Amino acid sequence: MTTFGESHGVALGCIIDGCPAGLELNKEMIQKALNRRRPGVSPDGKLNASVTARTEADEVEILSGLFEGRTTGTPIALEVRNTSQHSKDYGNLDLTFRPGHADYTYDIKYKGNRDYRGGGRSSGRETLARVAAGAVASQLLAQYGIKITAYTIKAAGISAEKRNLSQIEENALRAPDNEAAKKMNARIEELRASGDSAGGVIECLVTGCPAGLGEPVFDKLDARLAHAVFSIGAVKGFEVGEGFAAARLKGSENNDAFRMAQDRVTKATNHAGGILGGISDGDDIIFRAAFKPTPSIAQTQQTVNRDHKDTDIEIHGRHDPVIAPRAVVVVESMAAIVIADMYLSSLGSKLDDLK
Amino acid sequence: MTTFGESHGVALGCIIDGCPAGLELNKEMIQKALNRRRPGVSPDGKLNASVTARTEADEVEILSGLFEGRTTGTPIALEVRNTSQHSKDYGNLDLTFRPGHADYTYDIKYKGNRDYRGGGRSSGRETLARVAAGAVASQLLAQYGIKITAYTIKAAGISAEKRNLSQIEENALRAPDNEAAKKMNARIEELRASGDSAGGVIECLVTGCPAGLGEPVFDKLDARLAHAVFSIGAVKGFEVGEGFAAARLKGSENNDAFRMAQDRVTKATNHAGGILGGISDGDDIIFRAAFKPTPSIAQTQQTVNRDHKDTDIEIHGRHDPVIAPRAVVVVESMAAIVIADMYLSSLGSKLDDLK
Amino acid sequence: MTTFGESHGVALGCIIDGCPAGLELNKEMIQKALNRRRPGVSPDGKLNASVTARTEADEVEILSGLFEGRTTGTPIALEVRNTSQHSKDYGNLDLTFRPGHADYTYDIKYKGNRDYRGGGRSSGRETLARVAAGAVASQLLAQYGIKITAYTIKAAGISAEKRNLSQIEENALRAPDNEAAKKMNARIEELRASGDSAGGVIECLVTGCPAGLGEPVFDKLDARLAHAVFSIGAVKGFEVGEGFAAARLKGSENNDAFRMAQDRVTKATNHAGGILGGISDGDDIIFRAAFKPTPSIAQTQQTVNRDHKDTDIEIHGRHDPVIAPRAVVVVESMAAIVIADMYLSSLGSKLDDLK
Amino acid sequence: MTTFGESHGVALGCIIDGCPAGLELNKEMIQKALNRRRPGVSPDGKLNASVTARTEADEVEILSGLFEGRTTGTPIALEVRNTSQHSKDYGNLDLTFRPGHADYTYDIKYKGNRDYRGGGRSSGRETLARVAAGAVASQLLAQYGIKITAYTIKAAGISAEKRNLSQIEENALRAPDNEAAKKMNARIEELRASGDSAGGVIECLVTGCPAGLGEPVFDKLDARLAHAVFSIGAVKGFEVGEGFAAARLKGSENNDAFRMAQDRVTKATNHAGGILGGISDGDDIIFRAAFKPTPSIAQTQQTVNRDHKDTDIEIHGRHDPVIAPRAVVVVESMAAIVIADMYLSSLGSKLDDLK
Repeated sequence: MTTFGESHGVALGCIIDGCPAGLELNKEMIQKALNRRRPGVSPDGKLNASVTARTEADEVEILSGLFEGRTTGTPIALEVRNTSQHSKDYGNLDLTFRPGHADYTYDIKYKGNRDYRGGGRSSGRETLARVAAGAVASQLLAQYGIKITAYTIKAAGISAEKRNLSQIEENALRAPDNEAAKKMNARIEELRASGDSAGGVIECLVTGCPAGLGEPVFDKLDARLAHAVFSIGAVKGFEVGEGFAAARLKGSENNDAFRMAQDRVTKATNHAGGILGGISDGDDIIFRAAFKPTPSIAQTQQTVNRDHKDTDIEIHGRHDPVIAPRAVVVVESMAAIVIADMYLSSLGSKLDDLK
Repeated sequence: MTTFGESHGVALGCIIDGCPAGLELNKEMIQKALNRRRPGVSPDGKLNASVTARTEADEVEILSGLFEGRTTGTPIALEVRNTSQHSKDYGNLDLTFRPGHADYTYDIKYKGNRDYRGGGRSSGRETLARVAAGAVASQLLAQYGIKITAYTIKAAGISAEKRNLSQIEENALRAPDNEAAKKMNARIEELRASGDSAGGVIECLVTGCPAGLGEPVFDKLDARLAHAVFSIGAVKGFEVGEGFAAARLKGSENNDAFRMAQDRVTKATNHAGGILGGISDGDDIIFRAAFKPTPSIAQTQQTVNRDHKDTDIEIHGRHDPVIAPRAVVVVESMAAIVIADMYLSSLGSKLDDLK
Repeated sequence: MTTFGESHGVALGCIIDGCPAGLELNKEMIQKALNRRRPGVSPDGKLNASVTARTEADEVEILSGLFEGRTTGTPIALEVRNTSQHSKDYGNLDLTFRPGHADYTYDIKYKGNRDYRGGGRSSGRETLARVAAGAVASQLLAQYGIKITAYTIKAAGISAEKRNLSQIEENALRAPDNEAAKKMNARIEELRASGDSAGGVIECLVTGCPAGLGEPVFDKLDARLAHAVFSIGAVKGFEVGEGFAAARLKGSENNDAFRMAQDRVTKATNHAGGILGGISDGDDIIFRAAFKPTPSIAQTQQTVNRDHKDTDIEIHGRHDPVIAPRAVVVVESMAAIVIADMYLSSLGSKLDDLK
Repeated sequence: MTTFGESHGVALGCIIDGCPAGLELNKEMIQKALNRRRPGVSPDGKLNASVTARTEADEVEILSGLFEGRTTGTPIALEVRNTSQHSKDYGNLDLTFRPGHADYTYDIKYKGNRDYRGGGRSSGRETLARVAAGAVASQLLAQYGIKITAYTIKAAGISAEKRNLSQIEENALRAPDNEAAKKMNARIEELRASGDSAGGVIECLVTGCPAGLGEPVFDKLDARLAHAVFSIGAVKGFEVGEGFAAARLKGSENNDAFRMAQDRVTKATNHAGGILGGISDGDDIIFRAAFKPTPSIAQTQQTVNRDHKDTDIEIHGRHDPVIAPRAVVVVESMAAIVIADMYLSSLGSKLDDLK
């Protein structure tokens, strides 16, 4: 998968290479995934407090790789045109580096050649191409019974107390706990009112993944997931299974006993999060990602400008006060892409795989 | 970098491609790094309680890529022969899957074709090749004033209270706090006596890294570090800067203000851990990795065997009761390899880089 | 560079990754290159005998990676919409495999999932994306004085007798010899009249390329050029410098003596074609590619259909009776892409390249 | 596959990644392939006129990836120690660039950091690692009935008149025609006597290759073969099927008619050389490579030295007067590596390939 596009450029999109031929591709499912990623839209389809309104349609177009509804094995190009990017007032973003953003690092890396409009390539809008590609990967994985579900388990310091997956799309936070979501929302509203923002943690559950995905050393399945999830902007932490908590456990607590159940090798517990030695063990894969608070806040902040003078900045406009709910879709997408990739690349690991 | 080798095979080693020509390579520094990785040797050169004795020399040999003491730009092959692998008793590791290990997942992935002796390719001994390659990368980075230092900040549930880097090599835990190290050691001895093991957290500090390393989207510097560190066995979590703590902070707390200082752009704080938008910002890079407790423990554990029958296992022999202290060298090595790689690949990001 | 698109799909295009920031990109030059690739248009802008008419505009759109006329270092997406693909009669191409085409091999590789309209992904129209990317690479190389020129030296068995580069765009064959071009044209007209087609040979000259491009073993500059040129459909041979003729020479004839000239190392002759040991030597790079005759011919041919029955096929419609003249632009494009790539990847081959 | 090693360094070797687990690997077959590559040994085991004597054993050692005689799916490292490299007299090769060699281009690329002993990394001895890896690939391919045979069809301007494959190992030229080999040998002896050398052409035949290998656009099977074969030192031309001759043919002559034969799709002729649209068509794959004459000749040649002064050079010592016979094994090896690679990477091209 290769992507392109800036927040306020002509279009964003991706090319997907290596998708097997013969997959019946449902364009509506791609569009639906993109709609879930759109800002300002709560799961019930209404605008809501925690996320801000944006009117862009994000309509996907399939440019290649599909014939009579099925993939042909050749590159699949997906594209979304930017429609509401015209006549914007970008304030002084061309001159002043926003704290917590990539403005300064892009500026120095590319020697001032930078599309500052809406953050350009570093905008969260870039994830649109990932979601489109992820929706293709998800459809491939669905053929093999692999399902990926992410949800917010922490926002603004408040944790979900349960994992009721059926509630995820019932609240604006995409938390598996409607009660907790209500409290998160209230706290976030307070923060927004004071010109501030909140961070969050997303958990992701992969069910139906067969044992044997992942390469022994450098391309361990968890290493590839870590790479993919950390490539999402605003991610500051990643953990699998017990994660950082494992560092506090004893070996006798953390090890998962193997047990036979209905002629299958299973684990009595799943502290490992479904990955042993970098290879999937057939159990549920569970990982979490920490998102920092939205860096664009209304409060006045100290910064410097391109002329290297100290100055202040106030960032106005529509910004999510918390990134996690929308990022849920992006995390699912990146997980789907990695697992589809590892599924395909694991073909041929043993002599029997060849005809 | 490509590596090869099993715990009890003929040799382990690596090929390093793309190291610039003209680097004066100090073989002693590679050997010293390998010695730091060796089990059973405390920083003061004595055997000690927390880590177990092994007598293997791990002598490195440079097979290619060096001429009259300098790199020639061609592949550098490094090799360490296994010397103490003969006439071992592997118990029933060929038949029984150790909980928390990769035995089962390798077995299913490779359909039973598995070198079970000492864990084969999944053994911690595999990291030897990483350390050798890392020692080359470190020497390259040293030319540009980039220095990488890792240390244990948590073990067996006990945290280092300070970051006194000069104490790291003064205690067996490689903690930057001799007092805390003493407590960790005592707790670990208790665990070992009860046939158990402990987890830990390693922190890594990169100083002198210029701004501008990292690619905007998929090959963000933190994504590459996450990949590299998660490819080390037993790692279950990775975070940069505030990491998971950032999820609890407000935007106004987590954002780092930019300030001019001596004509340079600096940050008033470093919650970001030196990386903004996936690109280094010129500040210190700080990340942490969580290691699970050593899975090889003396207590009796439930498991299954290759015939898919429930059974018990007791793992005897020399095993570190905590992985972190030795992994410190491996974390440094992986960080050095990634940063050297990003340093080289960032050449050509702007027109001025070309002559 | 990654490309996508089928002959009669929605669009064709490419994503270019790694183009340095700060390059002033001239869209007109990209369009001009695409126009040179268009069928049915002779260099003088008139329709002509040797190549057939097609009315598609092939208008390029730049979707990303450019800001205020300069590259930003982020992915550059280029796209051309297909406009004349509607309401076509594809005859029985869905059922019958054309001899000399990829119909059968695609069919078996992708198990019948194949966009047969106009050849789909295997159509020569796919080269449009290469030409767009090549025009970007050429503009980058122009900054460093590197210039690439290809031309037809043989068509329908008739050879160019001279290398007058100023005549290339004066004749429909893009031959550096107007006299020879006239003879080629006449012979091709005869073939076309008899429902047949002709092959040809293209030569490519790269001037201004510095010494030192190419990697010592597997990514030799000539190996990369061979790969790139052979990836163009219909290419059956590739050679550098003396090429196949070198096999007939003696060492004393084929070796190029080194001589100092104006304080520079030069070669008295250039049998090597500018590449020694896979690395550019600073001299002109010269290579040739053999193109087979257009496989789509009007004569009745024997073939099989998808039901695996023997049958006959007659291919009508607008087909170039010779591929070479249009492929000239494609060869130039692939050479530009490879050399730009090697230019960028050769940064960092010696310690001095790093700051 | 990654390789390392210089002509007079400590060792040469390779790491093979991605070989499926469960392959019974025959070390003797690897050694036998290496022996065929050795200089100075004719197929009948005797020293002979056309190739010069060298006494090195080239003993291969398998360092990893094998357990109880079968591959484990983990990296296979193969190594050959240099044994006769000690106490050599390298004349003034450190100072003077040999015409037709890579001395000058390495020197400029790596700024003088160059192992000049025996040509260092640019020596033909580097192919030893390719042959070792190729012998592993060949054993994998043999499981699926794919067989690769190369042979000299032209040397010193004399062509083989027939393709009697059983005669290949009966003559020192590895020509499929003992009569022609005798003439080649005589002519080469004359050249050697006059301090000169000869070029040659090798043809390679792949039988049993299934249809469907190769990727549609950039990684066409012929493009990958072109890359691999052109990465062998001294290769100046590559062609598939009719190759350059196709440029002279008419479409009606060059197209291969499809015909059903015993329920299989076959081609009446094989001008294509077994590859259509970059994808294998199930027919024999045939390609040819042109080798330039050995650049090391005894005659006095003009050159320059590292101080950039004009000078003369005479190259003495043991050098093959013709490269082709030994390169036969290298060509086979590179073909085996590419086809094994494409075989594995083509898994997953259609939905049915996944379980």
